[in-house]
Amino acid sequence: MLTLLERARQLDAADPLAAYRDRFVITDPDTIYLDGNSLGRLPKSTRDRLRHAIEVEWASDLIRGWDRWIELAREAGDVLAGIVGAHPGEVALSDSTSVNLYKLAAAALRERPDRQTVLTDDDNFPTDQYVLQGLAEAGGLKLSVLRSDVDRGVDAGAVRAALGGDVALVCLSHVAYRSGAIADLAGITAAAHEAGALVLWDLCHSAGAVPVGLAEAGVDLAVGCTYKHLNGGPGSPAFLYVRRDLQAKLRQPIWGWFGQADQFAMAGEYRPVDGIERFLVGTPPVLGGYGALEGARLTAEAGIEAVAAKGRLLTSYQVELYDAWLAPLGFTLASPRDADRRGAHVTLHHPQAWQVCQALKAERVIPDFRTPDRLRLGVAPLYTTFADVYRSMERLRDLVAAARHEAFPKDRARVT
Amino acid sequence: MLTLLERARQLDAADPLAAYRDRFVITDPDTIYLDGNSLGRLPKSTRDRLRHAIEVEWASDLIRGWDRWIELAREAGDVLAGIVGAHPGEVALSDSTSVNLYKLAAAALRERPDRQTVLTDDDNFPTDQYVLQGLAEAGGLKLSVLRSDVDRGVDAGAVRAALGGDVALVCLSHVAYRSGAIADLAGITAAAHEAGALVLWDLCHSAGAVPVGLAEAGVDLAVGCTYKHLNGGPGSPAFLYVRRDLQAKLRQPIWGWFGQADQFAMAGEYRPVDGIERFLVGTPPVLGGYGALEGARLTAEAGIEAVAAKGRLLTSYQVELYDAWLAPLGFTLASPRDADRRGAHVTLHHPQAWQVCQALKAERVIPDFRTPDRLRLGVAPLYTTFADVYRSMERLRDLVAAARHEAFPKDRARVT
Repeated sequence: MLTLLERARQLDAADPLAAYRDRFVITDPDTIYLDGNSLGRLPKSTRDRLRHAIEVEWASDLIRGWDRWIELAREAGDVLAGIVGAHPGEVALSDSTSVNLYKLAAAALRERPDRQTVLTDDDNFPTDQYVLQGLAEAGGLKLSVLRSDVDRGVDAGAVRAALGGDVALVCLSHVAYRSGAIADLAGITAAAHEAGALVLWDLCHSAGAVPVGLAEAGVDLAVGCTYKHLNGGPGSPAFLYVRRDLQAKLRQPIWGWFGQADQFAMAGEYRPVDGIERFLVGTPPVLGGYGALEGARLTAEAGIEAVAAKGRLLTSYQVELYDAWLAPLGFTLASPRDADRRGAHVTLHHPQAWQVCQALKAERVIPDFRTPDRLRLGVAPLYTTFADVYRSMERLRDLVAAARHEAFPKDRARVT
Repeated sequence: MLTLLERARQLDAADPLAAYRDRFVITDPDTIYLDGNSLGRLPKSTRDRLRHAIEVEWASDLIRGWDRWIELAREAGDVLAGIVGAHPGEVALSDSTSVNLYKLAAAALRERPDRQTVLTDDDNFPTDQYVLQGLAEAGGLKLSVLRSDVDRGVDAGAVRAALGGDVALVCLSHVAYRSGAIADLAGITAAAHEAGALVLWDLCHSAGAVPVGLAEAGVDLAVGCTYKHLNGGPGSPAFLYVRRDLQAKLRQPIWGWFGQADQFAMAGEYRPVDGIERFLVGTPPVLGGYGALEGARLTAEAGIEAVAAKGRLLTSYQVELYDAWLAPLGFTLASPRDADRRGAHVTLHHPQAWQVCQALKAERVIPDFRTPDRLRLGVAPLYTTFADVYRSMERLRDLVAAARHEAFPKDRARVT
């Protein structure tokens, strides 16, 4: 029987995506990066593209660069559409996830004026909850917040039970940011439609990690970021998706010149353009846009099914090592055990998670802490190896066994 | 008496900002760039900073880069505050100009719930008009649009006459995007306050070109972009200003996690942070943010008074050449003749402006076309020389005298 280390070697040897690791800039191979689901690594193609964009396009083309840049929102959108299972013309780069969520949720509520309830859950990412709270307050609507078991994610049955004739919009995360649990996107979308509601999915933790199948499920609206699994770079622009047949029906609230028909005619009256661009607002960030485009291209080239398949193997191997080494040390599993029910990370509970997180960083493994007692270990199928998983879990085991984490501060500094 | 060319040489020799030209990447010195008020040039410090941000901070610091990046919005904001005459802590980088305008206008309207009118003028930049139209429609408000003489800019007397007890908000551009006319910011602000209204100034064409004096005039709210006179790069983030004593009173409508107190505690309920950060929303663009920071630093170092003084000399010299050469060729002046009444560009009417604009580009002078018959010639005191002005006006004169523009298409292609 193979040892756990031999299994890592065997899995790496059989990995069809192994060559993609070399497509990234990796300056310190001994650091094991398990937070690509907060900020993905720098692809070499992005480094080169950004050098060109800055030092040739901006420096020499100057304003004429916009002949090219004006296409970026849709060009990147079409690549992203392929990754999340949408059609070309249904996705565009735009703003931040929060601003996109605001625009699309407001557009949806305008489309269902006879209904007064927005349905979400308390495990939805905080900014999503805040955006919905703001909209509910401004519109005098009721925000109905389901309680979810954080480690198990959205309970489709509870969502179904909460759907009634007053629900205008259901807004949930596809992959939960703490546990990595995958929600039943198709089932919940169908149930919402049956009840006459629209759905808006947050894909931040699923885009580039697992197939989403927006078109197949008939999803109305979605938003997501490009700086996590899609490796777009720090603060790269987010994306939004609007199903094609809904585009002409919806009107978002922030009427800006990038949503205007014949924008450079500079007409005085807003007349939104046909197509996905009507959900754009102001001048788009070009450098971040190139980052999003190049990052998405890499995932598209590898294929989302292959990426997700490796993600399942990586997280399964993490769970295997957890069972063997970490469960005896006081950790418990904070993610679904079934690989088909998780995105590309495994989260563990530990009563001293904050200290463990700091200690692990000091030993050159970079995880993420999630409130209140979670250690989140993200894998990136394009650059995380099975050997990385082995070494990171080994370091984690050894430091906790030796209680080295206890030398670190107990509490997260409060940021205000 | 000096010839016009000798005057250019003399002015360049006496220019205290002459050395700043070498702080920019200029790849084709024979191209005369007169559209820095659409997209400023690339500063060398920005090129170097972005290389470092991408190839060291992103590539190696990875998620730890946020320890540094999280400060960018305020760090750049404080530099910008110095340029527009605000106090530290009153300005932040955030989103696009359009989104900022939406947030601040909505916040202002919420603060004046008993009033139903928003006052603007028809020479305000189109995206500003669209944003206000959207807000007016959503809130059932009246949008009162003054008619301005485009070449003269905002008529302060007309604004005063239109102010009544029902005006909640006055929203205007400080420097007009077509004529470059400077509005009476202090006078209009005082009049609006007397009438109980709030003011929101769009500084896109004034920030980095002329002093604004926000604090001195007691301005309530302002927005602006960083990619024009501030040389932040294509689509670099915009900024917003909220007078300190108003910050706690106002609440903007897009409640996102970058406006949340103790953001990383991930609390479920939105509680906006104190200070300018309460007007932020989602994850900010880091690369564009560095561009904005470095660009603003260059203007701050040169000093906005020195920049504006050179701007007045450059545009006055443009007008002098127009009088001598272009008035006889069918051009008329579309900007104020008084240098104290203009920002950093001079605009000319010509019945074939679109054709002239194309022809001028073909002769390596890059101006901008503005509807319907305007040729906009922007100067950037940090890198435009008086010799540039001489040569550009000489090329313009010669091509129109020889009717070379008539070989170019008559109509702007319609973009949809």
